[in-house]
Amino acid sequence: MKRLLKITGLLIMPLLLTAQHPVTFFTKSEAAEIKGNLAKYPVLTRSYSEIKNDVDKYLGKDVDVPFPKDAAGGYTHEKHKANYTLMFNSGILYNLTNDIKYARLVRDILLKYAVLNPTLKNHPQATSSSPGHIFWQALNDANWLVYTGMAYDLIYNSLLPSERNIIENGAFRPEVDFFTKDLKSWFNLIHNHGVWACAGVGIVGIATNNKEYVDMALYGTNKDGKSGFLAQMNGLFSPDGYYTEGPYYVRYAILPYYLFANALQRARPDLNIFKYRNAILQKALTSGLQQTNLDGKFFPLNDALKDKDYTSNELVTAVDIAWDVYGKDEGLLVVAKKQDRVLLNKGGIAIAAALTGNKSVPTYYSYRPVEYKDGKNGDEGGVSLLRIGKGNDLSTLLYKYTSHGLSHGHFDKLNIVLFDKGNEILTDYGSVRFIGIEQKYGGRYLPENKTYASQTIAHNTIVADETSHFNGREEEGEKYHSDKLFSNINSSSVQVVSAKEDNAYKNVHLQRTEYFLQLPDGRKMIVDLFNASSPEEHQYDLPFQYSGQLINTSFTYESFTKKQETLGRKNGYQFLWKEAEAKLNNATAQFTFLNDRTYYSISTLIQDTATLFFTRSGANDPDFNLRREPAFIIRKKGTDEAFVTVIEIHGKFDPIAEFSTNSYPSVKKITLLQNNKDYSIAEVMVDDKKLLIAQCNKDFDNNTKHTTQNINWTGPYAVWYDGKILN
Amino acid sequence: MKRLLKITGLLIMPLLLTAQHPVTFFTKSEAAEIKGNLAKYPVLTRSYSEIKNDVDKYLGKDVDVPFPKDAAGGYTHEKHKANYTLMFNSGILYNLTNDIKYARLVRDILLKYAVLNPTLKNHPQATSSSPGHIFWQALNDANWLVYTGMAYDLIYNSLLPSERNIIENGAFRPEVDFFTKDLKSWFNLIHNHGVWACAGVGIVGIATNNKEYVDMALYGTNKDGKSGFLAQMNGLFSPDGYYTEGPYYVRYAILPYYLFANALQRARPDLNIFKYRNAILQKALTSGLQQTNLDGKFFPLNDALKDKDYTSNELVTAVDIAWDVYGKDEGLLVVAKKQDRVLLNKGGIAIAAALTGNKSVPTYYSYRPVEYKDGKNGDEGGVSLLRIGKGNDLSTLLYKYTSHGLSHGHFDKLNIVLFDKGNEILTDYGSVRFIGIEQKYGGRYLPENKTYASQTIAHNTIVADETSHFNGREEEGEKYHSDKLFSNINSSSVQVVSAKEDNAYKNVHLQRTEYFLQLPDGRKMIVDLFNASSPEEHQYDLPFQYSGQLINTSFTYESFTKKQETLGRKNGYQFLWKEAEAKLNNATAQFTFLNDRTYYSISTLIQDTATLFFTRSGANDPDFNLRREPAFIIRKKGTDEAFVTVIEIHGKFDPIAEFSTNSYPSVKKITLLQNNKDYSIAEVMVDDKKLLIAQCNKDFDNNTKHTTQNINWTGPYAVWYDGKILN
Repeated sequence: MKRLLKITGLLIMPLLLTAQHPVTFFTKSEAAEIKGNLAKYPVLTRSYSEIKNDVDKYLGKDVDVPFPKDAAGGYTHEKHKANYTLMFNSGILYNLTNDIKYARLVRDILLKYAVLNPTLKNHPQATSSSPGHIFWQALNDANWLVYTGMAYDLIYNSLLPSERNIIENGAFRPEVDFFTKDLKSWFNLIHNHGVWACAGVGIVGIATNNKEYVDMALYGTNKDGKSGFLAQMNGLFSPDGYYTEGPYYVRYAILPYYLFANALQRARPDLNIFKYRNAILQKALTSGLQQTNLDGKFFPLNDALKDKDYTSNELVTAVDIAWDVYGKDEGLLVVAKKQDRVLLNKGGIAIAAALTGNKSVPTYYSYRPVEYKDGKNGDEGGVSLLRIGKGNDLSTLLYKYTSHGLSHGHFDKLNIVLFDKGNEILTDYGSVRFIGIEQKYGGRYLPENKTYASQTIAHNTIVADETSHFNGREEEGEKYHSDKLFSNINSSSVQVVSAKEDNAYKNVHLQRTEYFLQLPDGRKMIVDLFNASSPEEHQYDLPFQYSGQLINTSFTYESFTKKQETLGRKNGYQFLWKEAEAKLNNATAQFTFLNDRTYYSISTLIQDTATLFFTRSGANDPDFNLRREPAFIIRKKGTDEAFVTVIEIHGKFDPIAEFSTNSYPSVKKITLLQNNKDYSIAEVMVDDKKLLIAQCNKDFDNNTKHTTQNINWTGPYAVWYDGKILN
Repeated sequence: MKRLLKITGLLIMPLLLTAQHPVTFFTKSEAAEIKGNLAKYPVLTRSYSEIKNDVDKYLGKDVDVPFPKDAAGGYTHEKHKANYTLMFNSGILYNLTNDIKYARLVRDILLKYAVLNPTLKNHPQATSSSPGHIFWQALNDANWLVYTGMAYDLIYNSLLPSERNIIENGAFRPEVDFFTKDLKSWFNLIHNHGVWACAGVGIVGIATNNKEYVDMALYGTNKDGKSGFLAQMNGLFSPDGYYTEGPYYVRYAILPYYLFANALQRARPDLNIFKYRNAILQKALTSGLQQTNLDGKFFPLNDALKDKDYTSNELVTAVDIAWDVYGKDEGLLVVAKKQDRVLLNKGGIAIAAALTGNKSVPTYYSYRPVEYKDGKNGDEGGVSLLRIGKGNDLSTLLYKYTSHGLSHGHFDKLNIVLFDKGNEILTDYGSVRFIGIEQKYGGRYLPENKTYASQTIAHNTIVADETSHFNGREEEGEKYHSDKLFSNINSSSVQVVSAKEDNAYKNVHLQRTEYFLQLPDGRKMIVDLFNASSPEEHQYDLPFQYSGQLINTSFTYESFTKKQETLGRKNGYQFLWKEAEAKLNNATAQFTFLNDRTYYSISTLIQDTATLFFTRSGANDPDFNLRREPAFIIRKKGTDEAFVTVIEIHGKFDPIAEFSTNSYPSVKKITLLQNNKDYSIAEVMVDDKKLLIAQCNKDFDNNTKHTTQNINWTGPYAVWYDGKILN
């Protein structure tokens, strides 16, 4: 109700759309300031030279604007991408040099688009429900609008009115009409595509002094505020800045968010856009950066390409603008230093100045344990990042109990991912896609993205009856979210998060609690209590996708050495080769693997019987689209099954100096003293010392006193090591 | 004959064994010089502090000298290793600080060994033909002798005569006797173990003023010069410094070579050991470094662990001593900078001084195209490193036509390995071993090292009839070597090497020529002409082990998606899963893969029919000892079969900026215009331009004029591109 009023408030305010140009990227006075500083700061000088060298190659040449034909990776696709970057950069140079040749370069290309665009229909390679004109998908057309809109604005003053008329009606109008009429429902959708589409139409609106365009961009084609940029700012982020599609996609969406906001800040200062929703764009950036690995790569939740890090163009843009509008931030400086280039705008100068001669920039971003709620109201589960360690010795356990995450979401309720020393240890496959590689289905998501990577078995969470959560149906998944039960991330020796999921499977209650511990002697271990309970009997599989080489197991297994078959036939199981199998009774089963220079051991309690599998992805993959990655899978059958697993980070292997220390797990035995609806009490023998975990499963109040098994504690959980409480 | 005379000459020279101490590592006056410089150069200061911090932890403590029990990775193994390093470092500190506590630390440990060593029999974990006493293999006992000998010498002056007597007779004599009596034939073997053994006995001899020990070390237990250190310097290197066991093993052997030579230089200046055999130790170091990748890792020929690089302790020692005795070398400085630590000796100071404030140290070692002959007389084949490109864009094609390489040799006649931009592209498995990891067979070589990694199919060369070269018999392989036919590495656009192998298979003549080309437009490609000819019919398999993700093939294939079986049953074939198979007639078959950010395409000519396989290692591997790595295998049947293959390095993939260029191979068609005993003439269509290669197969004189197919040229080969000769 309050939000509706706010939007209505904005709607009736006078529109301060200014006719000053340029205004979308920077203003004349900002351009003058940049010019005066170009030689002062090395990274600014370098960034300028790079752009200038790139653009200068095209001066005096006839730039090709080909008729659209190819998918991503193909010539016409790459050329149109290169063209919008070229126009934008040349537009900047025009303002920084006042040399008309840069404006002419942009004008000539724009005039070609003015001829081309009115002739375009759906791209011949279009396969999605939102086809593009210039590119195979409308999303790329939106990218084009964002940059071409800014380019036009940057050279606006150099154009004759007749030229403006031709470009506005020839190059831009067909695209804007296509978006806001033919693809209206796509344009209005709350989704990263929609953010791009609004930014594109809005920036073109500002550049062409078109109030109609700007209004549609801000409030949706119906101008009722249910769609449009402000709705995207409300709908896709939780109040603390978590982006519902996950970190990989905030990396992508943050660019149009920041670029359009940057334009609005000058053209529509009345919106005070950077302060909107308690500065949600600042929170978006910070939460995105917290969700990166030591090497700057975004955590691979949902459909994510693992290569993407914070040195990407999107993050350069966001960081530089954020520095300008939100002020100094040491964390951003770390990122900016690794980016090693800046935007040629006010933020870029300020960062370049801050980096010059600065020897105290930390090596790593300021990572800390954090939790983010999901959902626009912050009531749709969330994600916790338990973090222990400093510098390169940082370990991050990510626990995901979010909502589905729209069309790029995976069926991975209560999934965990572990990073240690910059390496991904318990892994998430990410997405099956070779972005920009034409031979791989034009760079699109490959079929195995749906059939394997998004299925539950490709993650580190329970699969019941070889069927993915919500039966692998997105529309079902989107209805629900997991719920956090309790957590505490304010300790350097015990961090804990508990969450439940009741909708992934009918009549199955899933409850998982992660204890990330650092023992007094420095050893790190995770105790993972995962209960599945149901009135009916089920087969439960708990996979641990791991990265590394198997070193040892505590159990014997049958190895399929001469012939291999798949683990199953559907729901992702058909992609797993069964390499080995073991059946165990009443045991603590352990296996150790080596990743880089550290050992990791998984110890898991088997009560009654369980079957263990070692699998490897790559079956049913005729096109070699999948990486070959191993998993360790624990299979149990019953109504109520408990999975109590300890994951240890231990030892050191130095293949150069040839030494190996602490290569054996220190866990000797796991016992479940009690496990029911009321309490879970687990005892872990760590060498000759006892680790005891007591947890209440129904009352999560911090002040409730509990007694069971002669153990007394207060609050939802307690942990003791060697008789002393850990906290 | 000449060599024998030389050795005899040495034998009759007066033995200048000096009683001065210390003398093995440095002398008193050198120690004084180091002391005076400790604070001057940062890397020297750091190296000193590291050692001091390590040693100081043990001061005043009772250091354990346990009864030997464990294999590598286990407690007693690691403790004895740590002990000899501790003693050596503490001995250095005694001389640099004159603080008696460091000498006492060494003395007390030595006295414990003096009690322990006389009680030792073969180690309980001994499995090899050369068992150790303190360690599971004698080789490690030799390591102990080298460092403990120097440690004793370093504190010699602090000891009472009675203590010396106890230590010499208790700690050293049992070990020396064990080596020179029980293990006499092992001690006398020309092999890296022998180098270590001689260095150990020799250093102890110098440290204990024992002429007998030194003589045995220099000339073998029979003192006839057929064995011993000088014979090791003669027998293991070719005249240009190639070490017959390959680069991985020269890395290991170079330490005892340099340390013993360093001791002899002071104790026996008459030997002029660093000048011996035209300064063979300098050549050994340089050739070893040339055989490293951009990241400093040694090329993985024969039994090699791929992690080993030139920052290892062995290379720190060799580089620092070489700098002192052979003088400045910019290449060594690059290596020293990456090592980031120095020995506390004269060379170490000099390097530390050269690094201080030096901003012009290049990023990479001074790699260049090089060829090394194998065999002590340089007449047993060799290895060629074709190199094109600069800086990070360096590509290295390694072509191996050496002798067998002793017990660590692989059955890989005419094998090639390709490195590009620091990545291994066409790979060599190296060895199957997890050094120092107790759970993996005590860190020893694993069974799959012999059964898979050393077999021919694990390499990139022809396998006839699914049988390895020399039937996989080392004693057969050691009798023969391949022969170079011609080569030219003095061009930046055409580098070529041709070699033949007539003994790997009975009645099969193998001849392979590698053309590494850089076309005028900068594109790099390798043309690989491999002929197999025999009076009888054979099945020939040519594998390309590659590293990367398959992107595309020009042909259709059958994929074994639901069930996988092995490619064969023996000689390494049992370890390969058959992932896909294609039968082709008369075609240019192509496949493209992506490694890191570059595309690589393999195009191969199929005349008549061939079968192609995509395989992956990991079958018949119940203990998970193997990495899962892919290969592309071309199978042909017949008497005379030609394999004409072009390997292109092309394009760029940027997953962060999301662009992809030149992702398709430019080779369109391969034609063999002629191929017989006289000539091979191959034509490759590179886009629309013709690449023509003419090669004579029987006359390799540079001045012979040839005419065939209306083509005229002079010398063994000629290459034309677009009608112009390339050279």
